Amino acid sequence: MSPAAPLPAAEPLAPQPVVGLPSPFLVFLGEVTTVPLAKTAFGVRDWRGDDVVGQARLPGCGVDLGVDELTPAQAAARGARALLIGVAPIGGGIPPTWIPSLLAALEAGLDLISGLHARLRDIPAVREAAARLGRRLYDVRHADQAFPIATGARRSGRRLLTVGTDCALGKKYAALAIAQALRARGVDADFRATGQTGIMIAGQGVAIDAVVADFVAGAAETLSPDAAPDHWDVIEGQGSLFHPAYAGVSLGLLHGSQPDALVVCHDPTRTTLHAYPGFPVVSLAEAIARNAEAARLTNPAARVVGISLNTASLDEASARAAADEIGAAHGVPCFDPLRFGLDALLDRMLAP
Amino acid sequence: MSPAAPLPAAEPLAPQPVVGLPSPFLVFLGEVTTVPLAKTAFGVRDWRGDDVVGQARLPGCGVDLGVDELTPAQAAARGARALLIGVAPIGGGIPPTWIPSLLAALEAGLDLISGLHARLRDIPAVREAAARLGRRLYDVRHADQAFPIATGARRSGRRLLTVGTDCALGKKYAALAIAQALRARGVDADFRATGQTGIMIAGQGVAIDAVVADFVAGAAETLSPDAAPDHWDVIEGQGSLFHPAYAGVSLGLLHGSQPDALVVCHDPTRTTLHAYPGFPVVSLAEAIARNAEAARLTNPAARVVGISLNTASLDEASARAAADEIGAAHGVPCFDPLRFGLDALLDRMLAP
Repeated sequence: MSPAAPLPAAEPLAPQPVVGLPSPFLVFLGEVTTVPLAKTAFGVRDWRGDDVVGQARLPGCGVDLGVDELTPAQAAARGARALLIGVAPIGGGIPPTWIPSLLAALEAGLDLISGLHARLRDIPAVREAAARLGRRLYDVRHADQAFPIATGARRSGRRLLTVGTDCALGKKYAALAIAQALRARGVDADFRATGQTGIMIAGQGVAIDAVVADFVAGAAETLSPDAAPDHWDVIEGQGSLFHPAYAGVSLGLLHGSQPDALVVCHDPTRTTLHAYPGFPVVSLAEAIARNAEAARLTNPAARVVGISLNTASLDEASARAAADEIGAAHGVPCFDPLRFGLDALLDRMLAP
Repeated sequence: MSPAAPLPAAEPLAPQPVVGLPSPFLVFLGEVTTVPLAKTAFGVRDWRGDDVVGQARLPGCGVDLGVDELTPAQAAARGARALLIGVAPIGGGIPPTWIPSLLAALEAGLDLISGLHARLRDIPAVREAAARLGRRLYDVRHADQAFPIATGARRSGRRLLTVGTDCALGKKYAALAIAQALRARGVDADFRATGQTGIMIAGQGVAIDAVVADFVAGAAETLSPDAAPDHWDVIEGQGSLFHPAYAGVSLGLLHGSQPDALVVCHDPTRTTLHAYPGFPVVSLAEAIARNAEAARLTNPAARVVGISLNTASLDEASARAAADEIGAAHGVPCFDPLRFGLDALLDRMLAP
């Protein structure tokens, strides 16, 4: 599930209107040096690659999408309609070093798309240039919608939520792959995006970590509404119950999602949390137990149906061995959704 | 801890500047019919009663603070400087039925103080009247401060957090009483407010449930900064890990607070969650185990040091029997902080 290796072209997702997002994109990487902080860029490339005309990078950038390096003017000449900010610095701010690139994009006729906490519209120079040039600013992390307080009332239809032992290890990719596999089997299924990258891919969703805390579970209830009894919502997880900064977001999303099925996402080579070296990654046994226990508050039938591994740093034989060993140890299907088939997982999910 | 019964006059808290909140107050109750939804009003009356000149109620209101019923003009004549909204409807909105009262208060020369999610400044008629009359609007739930993402780094000083088996059963009152008892014993201690009522009482704090979800743990870290080794921050808890709407807020606050000591607050007569009749109250054993377990992510030394009971609906003998029985069952001091002494708890907290 690492976004570092190019994927075979993914099948397009079931049609979901991209509400107001102009495409194709010039993907902006800033001066990012590590792949995990560029997961928006890789997510859009991997799952919506036909809409990526190129990348724009600043000096010092150490990440490469493997697409053409273009100026905003060159991208516009190739048909790009927006510059899409593909990196997410910790804290969610927009560094001053990016402003000249954003202004150049506006001047070249591109709109701007951002998934950061900081809003494009709050940067005076950007706001003024956009107004002067008639360009649009899309802050997809900020829902214009007001959400209710969660009720805890059960909803019809079935739901799967991906959860994790850490951030940035494959919850979104697993959910996208599972939704795709369900549809390939003829099951009516929707991917439900809960983060900026997922929204950019799916064209709809709620950036759950940008919701006011009191309303997180309510927003999650809104995101996967009542549906037909055999319909599956496959909901993108966020954070981890064991993360010192984000666990509250994860718990609110878990309670509001009311999942019937949980898939625990894990990187078997990671020993401490990404960017939090003082925090060891919990065991899979603890992650399975605690997530299932917490989920049962709002859905007593919740169960863990699979373990999704990020085996990007393992060779094929090692990845297969790790999946077999971990699956046997925990008694559920274990797979890398980008390498191995999802049939065993789907059989488990769909079993009566 | 029920706010229903008037308390003996509380000792004033240690001096903490009331940053910009004009007092004394006319407390507005709207048409509220149940005491739990008026907990802001009772909290201010019980812990800052010298600043309450009276109450204002709408037809249908079924709650009484036991203070004089006053119009805004009468309150102003008695020295009131602000109308303080003392009720918190689920969802946090400001009903249209309140607008005439708010406008009358502005006309009478009072400022407005609200702790609701909805902002006074977003109601055009209120905003315009305030501007025309030179009155001020205080939306204390909304921090003007930007918070960082939590780091998980340990801070110096000691911390206690009140947690609970439900909302609205005494976490704030327990924290206020414990902070007061610590100071009475000569311990340097601060009450740290995390909700609108606590902020109105203490004059500072952060309404943690109004913070954007990603920053909840970071806001909690900011709220109780590094302090002297023997200093105690007594932090007001919010919600419950077992609440279908608010558990995420509780978990983020727990992780960011990094408490050394937890006090579990409980109402022994409540069988289902307040306003969520489909959700049974968890056992104290589970509440103790799950809170301690979650707290140890950011403070491995975290332990439950006491159980705080809300015995408002029990007579003295029954309350004493319940406290004795529950304390013995769980091996920690058990008390109603408004009825019984806190010596056993303080001994446990302060033990080396």
